[in-house]
Amino acid sequence: LEITAAALEDPAAVRRRFKGTLQHRDIRVLDPSFAQSRDPGILARRHSILVNLQPIRALLFYNKTLVFVPDGADSILSTLMQRLRDAGEESASVSFSMRSLESIFVTVCQLLHDEVTKLTPEVHTTVEEIIKTSSGVTIERLRQAKSRVSKISSRLLGVQAAFEELLENDRDMALMNLDKVHNFPDYYNDDREEIWCVDHEDIELLVENYAQAIDGTFSQVEALRSEIDSAIGTITLRLDSARNKLLGIDLLVTSVTSAAAIGALIAALFGMNLNSGVAEDPHWFWGWFGGVMVAVPLIVAFMFYGIYRAGLLIT
Amino acid sequence: LEITAAALEDPAAVRRRFKGTLQHRDIRVLDPSFAQSRDPGILARRHSILVNLQPIRALLFYNKTLVFVPDGADSILSTLMQRLRDAGEESASVSFSMRSLESIFVTVCQLLHDEVTKLTPEVHTTVEEIIKTSSGVTIERLRQAKSRVSKISSRLLGVQAAFEELLENDRDMALMNLDKVHNFPDYYNDDREEIWCVDHEDIELLVENYAQAIDGTFSQVEALRSEIDSAIGTITLRLDSARNKLLGIDLLVTSVTSAAAIGALIAALFGMNLNSGVAEDPHWFWGWFGGVMVAVPLIVAFMFYGIYRAGLLIT
Amino acid sequence: LEITAAALEDPAAVRRRFKGTLQHRDIRVLDPSFAQSRDPGILARRHSILVNLQPIRALLFYNKTLVFVPDGADSILSTLMQRLRDAGEESASVSFSMRSLESIFVTVCQLLHDEVTKLTPEVHTTVEEIIKTSSGVTIERLRQAKSRVSKISSRLLGVQAAFEELLENDRDMALMNLDKVHNFPDYYNDDREEIWCVDHEDIELLVENYAQAIDGTFSQVEALRSEIDSAIGTITLRLDSARNKLLGIDLLVTSVTSAAAIGALIAALFGMNLNSGVAEDPHWFWGWFGGVMVAVPLIVAFMFYGIYRAGLLIT
Amino acid sequence: LEITAAALEDPAAVRRRFKGTLQHRDIRVLDPSFAQSRDPGILARRHSILVNLQPIRALLFYNKTLVFVPDGADSILSTLMQRLRDAGEESASVSFSMRSLESIFVTVCQLLHDEVTKLTPEVHTTVEEIIKTSSGVTIERLRQAKSRVSKISSRLLGVQAAFEELLENDRDMALMNLDKVHNFPDYYNDDREEIWCVDHEDIELLVENYAQAIDGTFSQVEALRSEIDSAIGTITLRLDSARNKLLGIDLLVTSVTSAAAIGALIAALFGMNLNSGVAEDPHWFWGWFGGVMVAVPLIVAFMFYGIYRAGLLIT
Amino acid sequence: LEITAAALEDPAAVRRRFKGTLQHRDIRVLDPSFAQSRDPGILARRHSILVNLQPIRALLFYNKTLVFVPDGADSILSTLMQRLRDAGEESASVSFSMRSLESIFVTVCQLLHDEVTKLTPEVHTTVEEIIKTSSGVTIERLRQAKSRVSKISSRLLGVQAAFEELLENDRDMALMNLDKVHNFPDYYNDDREEIWCVDHEDIELLVENYAQAIDGTFSQVEALRSEIDSAIGTITLRLDSARNKLLGIDLLVTSVTSAAAIGALIAALFGMNLNSGVAEDPHWFWGWFGGVMVAVPLIVAFMFYGIYRAGLLIT
Repeated sequence: LEITAAALEDPAAVRRRFKGTLQHRDIRVLDPSFAQSRDPGILARRHSILVNLQPIRALLFYNKTLVFVPDGADSILSTLMQRLRDAGEESASVSFSMRSLESIFVTVCQLLHDEVTKLTPEVHTTVEEIIKTSSGVTIERLRQAKSRVSKISSRLLGVQAAFEELLENDRDMALMNLDKVHNFPDYYNDDREEIWCVDHEDIELLVENYAQAIDGTFSQVEALRSEIDSAIGTITLRLDSARNKLLGIDLLVTSVTSAAAIGALIAALFGMNLNSGVAEDPHWFWGWFGGVMVAVPLIVAFMFYGIYRAGLLIT
Repeated sequence: LEITAAALEDPAAVRRRFKGTLQHRDIRVLDPSFAQSRDPGILARRHSILVNLQPIRALLFYNKTLVFVPDGADSILSTLMQRLRDAGEESASVSFSMRSLESIFVTVCQLLHDEVTKLTPEVHTTVEEIIKTSSGVTIERLRQAKSRVSKISSRLLGVQAAFEELLENDRDMALMNLDKVHNFPDYYNDDREEIWCVDHEDIELLVENYAQAIDGTFSQVEALRSEIDSAIGTITLRLDSARNKLLGIDLLVTSVTSAAAIGALIAALFGMNLNSGVAEDPHWFWGWFGGVMVAVPLIVAFMFYGIYRAGLLIT
Repeated sequence: LEITAAALEDPAAVRRRFKGTLQHRDIRVLDPSFAQSRDPGILARRHSILVNLQPIRALLFYNKTLVFVPDGADSILSTLMQRLRDAGEESASVSFSMRSLESIFVTVCQLLHDEVTKLTPEVHTTVEEIIKTSSGVTIERLRQAKSRVSKISSRLLGVQAAFEELLENDRDMALMNLDKVHNFPDYYNDDREEIWCVDHEDIELLVENYAQAIDGTFSQVEALRSEIDSAIGTITLRLDSARNKLLGIDLLVTSVTSAAAIGALIAALFGMNLNSGVAEDPHWFWGWFGGVMVAVPLIVAFMFYGIYRAGLLIT
Repeated sequence: LEITAAALEDPAAVRRRFKGTLQHRDIRVLDPSFAQSRDPGILARRHSILVNLQPIRALLFYNKTLVFVPDGADSILSTLMQRLRDAGEESASVSFSMRSLESIFVTVCQLLHDEVTKLTPEVHTTVEEIIKTSSGVTIERLRQAKSRVSKISSRLLGVQAAFEELLENDRDMALMNLDKVHNFPDYYNDDREEIWCVDHEDIELLVENYAQAIDGTFSQVEALRSEIDSAIGTITLRLDSARNKLLGIDLLVTSVTSAAAIGALIAALFGMNLNSGVAEDPHWFWGWFGGVMVAVPLIVAFMFYGIYRAGLLIT
Repeated sequence: LEITAAALEDPAAVRRRFKGTLQHRDIRVLDPSFAQSRDPGILARRHSILVNLQPIRALLFYNKTLVFVPDGADSILSTLMQRLRDAGEESASVSFSMRSLESIFVTVCQLLHDEVTKLTPEVHTTVEEIIKTSSGVTIERLRQAKSRVSKISSRLLGVQAAFEELLENDRDMALMNLDKVHNFPDYYNDDREEIWCVDHEDIELLVENYAQAIDGTFSQVEALRSEIDSAIGTITLRLDSARNKLLGIDLLVTSVTSAAAIGALIAALFGMNLNSGVAEDPHWFWGWFGGVMVAVPLIVAFMFYGIYRAGLLIT
C-alpha cells in the first residue's frame, strides 16, 4: 500500500515498466507532453485506473498509486497525501484504491472550488466599480475577470464531462473496484460481463457525489459569468443613453452657435467699409441692432422647440 | 411520527447520531457550510431520504422528519408544519414520510411561485416605464429587475434538475417508499432489485406533479426574461434611431452655420480697415450685401438638397 | 355519450364529484386558478384523461367529456361541439373518447394555426415598411409584432412538449383507450403491464399527427421570428452605415466652417479700429483679400484630401 | 409498374380512391392546401409510403407511384422520371418502390444541393464586395443573401428531421419494404412485430445515405451563414472604428474653429465703432494682431496635446 | 499486405473493380467530385471499411488498403506510410487493417492538432496587438484569424461526429474487425447478429482514444474562439467608451465656440458702419469690451457646470 509521486519525465521508462498492464495509447494519457492537450478523463482498465484531472494525473493499482503533478505543485501533492492518510484512519474498511481515488477527487474539486471562491469577491468588486465609474481602467479589469471566469468554467466543464462519461459507463465503473478485480479474477470473466457489469454501487455513489460538487461549483461560476454579462449590458446601455444626451445637448449648443452666426453675418455685412448710403441714418443702427438681438434668441427658441417636438431629446 | 426543526450547527453531532444510517458524504449535503454551494438535490438512501431544496434541507425517516432551515426563516417552518398537519387530516391513508415529502415540495414550489408572482408586476411596471421614458433611472431599475429574474430562474433550474434526476432514477424512487422499506426489508433485497425497482408509481406521480408545477413557474420566469430582453432591444433600436435623427439635424444646423461663416468671411474681408479703393463706390455695398444674402440661403438649400438626396436622413 | 361544457367555478364541488376517480392533485390541473400557471399537459389516469391545452381544459371518460373553457370563449366551444358531431357521423366506428380527443386536438391546433396565419401578413407588412422607412412608429410596431410572435411561439412550445411527453409514455397512451379499459378491466391488470403497455397504435397515430401539425405551425412561427430578427439586423446595420455617412459629411462641413473661421479671424484682425499704419497702403487690401480667398479653399481642399486619404469616408 | 404525376386538385376524389388503404389524416399530408404548412415527413403505412419532401409529394405502392408536384415544376417531374428509368436499367434487381423512393430522394437532395451550389458564389461575391466597399447597396444585398441562406437552411433542417425520424422508427422502415409486405402478408403479422420490425437493412442504408448527403449540404449552408455573420461582424467593428476616427478628427477640427472664434471675438471687439481712446496708438494694432496670431495656434496645439494625452484618438 | 496510394481519377474504373464488394452509393463517398461536399464519415461494410476524413479518404480490406489523398498532399501520404511501417514493427500482433486504421486516425488527428498548434500563437499575437492598438489593420487580421478558427472548428466537429456515430453503431464496429470477418465468415452470420454485434472491444478502444484526442483539440480551438470573441467585446466596449469621451469633450469645445460666437455677435453689431450715436462716448467701448470678455468665460463656465451636473461626462 504505497502512494508514489513521480515526475513522468521519461515516458519510455514508464512504458517499459507497465508494458504488461497498460497499452501504448493509455500511457499517452499520462505523458505530460500529450496530456496537456487532452481533456480531463477517468479511464478504467483491467487492474488499473487512469486519472487525468488537471493538474493531477494518476495511475491507480489495487495496492499502489502513482501520482504525477506538474513541476512546482508540491503543495497539491502534500495536501493529497495528508488527505489520503486521514481517509486511511477514518475509514479503514474502504479499499486502498477507493481511498486514493476519493482523495484525488476531493483535492481536485477543492482546488477548483477554492479558485472560484477566490475569484468571486474580485468579480463582485470589479462589477460594482465599473457600474459606478465605467472608466477605461475598470473596463480592462472587467475583461481580465471575464477571461478568468471563462477559463475556470471551461476547466469545470471538462471535469464534469469526465465524471458524466464515467457514470454512463457501467463496465468502467465495475472494473474500478480494483480490489475485487484482483481478488476474484474469475468473477470478472468476459463471458459474465452482464453480471459483474452492474456491480458498482460504491464507486457510483463516490463519483456521483463529486460530480454534484463540481455541478455546484459550476453553478457558482455561471452566476459570476451572468453577473459580468449583465454589467457589460448595463454599461453599454448607459453609454448609449449618455451618448444620445450628449448629442442632444450638442445639437442645442450648435443651434445657438448657428443663430449667432446668422446674426453676426448681418452685422458683418453692415460692417463692410463700403458706401452703403445709409451710414448716417440715425435709425438704421438701432433698428438692425435690436432686430438681430431679438431675432437670434427667437431663432434659438424656435429650433429648441422644433427639436423638443420631434422627440429627439429621448435619452 | 414527529417532525423536528433543527439548527444543524454541529455537524459532528449529527454525524455521530446517524453513523449507522448515513454515510460521511451524505451528511455534507445537509451541513449548512457545504450545502450553500451545492445544487438542489433529492437523494434516496436505504431507510432515509435527503432533501436539499434551498431554503429547506431535510432528512426523512419512515417515522421521523428532520427539517433544517436557515436562521430567520421560521415562517417557512411554520407554514411547512401547518401544511403537514392539514395533509395528515386530509389523507391519513398516505404514509407519514410521503406526507412530509409532499409538504416540503408544496412549500418550496409555493415559495418560488410566490416570488415570481411578486416579481411579475414590478417587471411589467419597469418595462412600461422604460419604454415610455428610457431615462437613466429606469435603466438602472431594469438592470435590477433582470438580475432578480436571472437569480430566480437559476434557482428554478436547480430544482427542476433535482426533480428530473430523481424521475430518471428508478432505484431511488423505489427506495423513497420508506414505510415499505421499513416493513418489508426482505422485499428490498439487493438480489431482487429488478423487481422492487419499478415499484414506485405513487412517488413518481408525486414528483412528476411538482416537477410540472416548477415547469409552469419556469415558463412564467422565461416570459418575464423575454419581456425584459425585448424592452432592451427596443430601447437600443430607439436610441439608435434617435441618434441618427440628432446627427441628421445637427448636420443641417452645422450646414447653416457653415454657409453663414462663408458669408461672414466675405463681409469681414470688406470690413478690413485697409484701402480698397472701392470704399466710396455707391453700388459695391448693396451688390455684395445682396449677393451674400442671396448666396448664403442658396448654399444652405443646395446642401440640404444634397443631404436629402444622399438618403442620409433615414432614421 | 354526452359532452358537457362546465364552468369550473367551484373546485370543491368537482373534487367531491370525482373523489373516487381523480386524485386531489389531478383536479388542480383543471382548476382555473391553478391551471393558468400550468404548462400544457395531457395526463392519462385509469378511466379518465385530463387535457390542459390552453384555452381548452377537458376531462374525458369513456362515455362522458367535460370541457372547461375560459369565460367569453363560447365560440371555441361551439366549434368543438360541431367538430365532435361531424366526427361522430364520419367515423362512427371510432370510440367516443377518441373522437372527443381528436376534436379537442383539431380545435387547439386550428386555433394556433389561425393565429399564426393571421399574424403572418401583419409581420410581413411591418417588416417591409420598416425596411423602407425605419421611422420611430414602425419600430414600435416591430416591437409589438415580435412580442406577439414570442408569445405564440412559447404557447406552441408548450403544446409541443405536452404531445412529446405523451408520445414517450407508453403506459399513458395505452390507458387512453378508455373504452377498452372500461370493457376489459382485467386486461389492464397491473401485473400484465408490459403486455397492454404497448397496445396503443391508434392513439399514437392520432397524437403523432397533431404533434406534426404543431411542428409545422411552429416552423412558420420560427420563420416569422427569423424574418423580424433579420429586419432588426438590417436596420441596425443601415443606421450604423448612415451614421458614419452623416459624421463624414458633418466633418467635411465642419472643415469648411473651420477654414472660413480662420479666414474671418485674419479679416477681423484687420478690421480692428486700431492704428495699423498700413490702412492707406493701396496694395494691402487686395493682397490680403485675395490671399484669404485663395487660402480658405486651399485649406478646405487639403482637409478633404486628408480625410479621403485616411479612408474615413467608408460608410 | 407505373409512375403517375397527378395534380391533386380534388382531395375528395383522392380520398374516395384510397379509402381502403389510407386514413383520413394521411390524405391531408398530400393535400396541397394542408401540405404547405406541414414540415417534411416520410410516413410508412401498411401497403403504402407517404412522402412529403417539398416540392415533391408522393404516394408509393408496391406497383404504383403517384407524384404530386406544384404547378410549374414540370422540370422536376421529368428529371425524376428520367432518373427512375435509369435506375430501372441499372439495378433491375431492386424493387420498383425502392427505386422510386431512391429517385425521389436523389431528386430532392440534388435540388437542394443545386440551390446551395448556386447560392455559394453569390454569397462569396457579396461578402467580398461588402468587405471592400460596405456601401448601402451591398448591405441590402447582404440582407437578401442572408435571408435566402436562412430559408434554404430551414428547408434542409426539415428534410434532415424527416430522415432522422424515419431512421429512429424500426417499424416504419420495415413496412417500407412494400414488395415483401405485399408478397408475404403473413410475415408482417402484428403478433410477430418484434421479428419483422428489424428487417430493414436495405431501406436503412438507403435513407442513411441520403441523410448524409443532406448533412453535407447543410454543412455547406452553415459555412455560408457563418461567413455572412462574420462579414456583418467585421463591418460593424469597422464602422465603429471609423466612427471613432471621424469623431476624433471632428474634435480636432472643432478645436481649430473654437480657437479661431476666440481670436475673432477679440478682433471683433476692437472692430467696434466705439471710442476706445487707443485707436491712434501705433503699437496696439500690431500688439494685438501678433498676440492673437500667436495665441490661436498655441490654443490649438494645447488642445491637440490634451486630446492626444487623454488617449481619445484610439480608433 | 499492401498499402496503395491511388489518385481516384476514374470513378468508373473503381466502380468496376469493386463491383462485387462495394455498392454504387459507397463508391460515391470515395469519389473526389462528391466527397468534397460530404461530411467526414467512417462506414463499415462486410469485408471493407470506408474512411472519409478529409484530406484522407481510404478503402480498407483485410489485406489491402487504398488511400486517396488530394493532389499535392504527398507529404501526408509519406507520413502515413512511415507511421504504418513503424506500427508494423512495434505491434506485429495487431491485424494489418487495424494498424492501417490507427495510422490514418493518428495522421488526421495530428494534422488537425498541428494546424491548431500553428494557429494558436498567431491568434494570441493578433489579440494582444488589437487590444493594444485597435487599428484598422489589426481588425482585418482579427477577422482572418476568426475565419480560420471557424473553419478548423467546423472540420473538427465533422471528425468528432464521424467518430461518435461509429461509437454508437455496434454492428459497424464489429464488422470493422476485417481479419475476423475474413477468417470466420460463419461467425458473422446475420442470424447471430446479436452475438457478434457486441464483439468490438479493440476497435472501440481505438476509436474512443482518437475521439478523445479530437475532443482535446476541439477544446483548444474553442479556447481560441472564446479569446477572439472576448477581444472583440473588449474593443467594442472600449470604442464605445472612447466615443462618449470624444463626444463629451466635443461638447465642451463646441460650448466654448458658441459662447465666443455670442460675444462676437455683439461686437460685430457694434462694428456696423451705421450711425449709433454712441460712437464717441468714451465709456461704451470699454464697458462692452469688458462686459463681453467677462460674460463669455462665465457662459462657458456655466455650460461646463451644467454638463457636469447632468452626469453627461461618464465614459
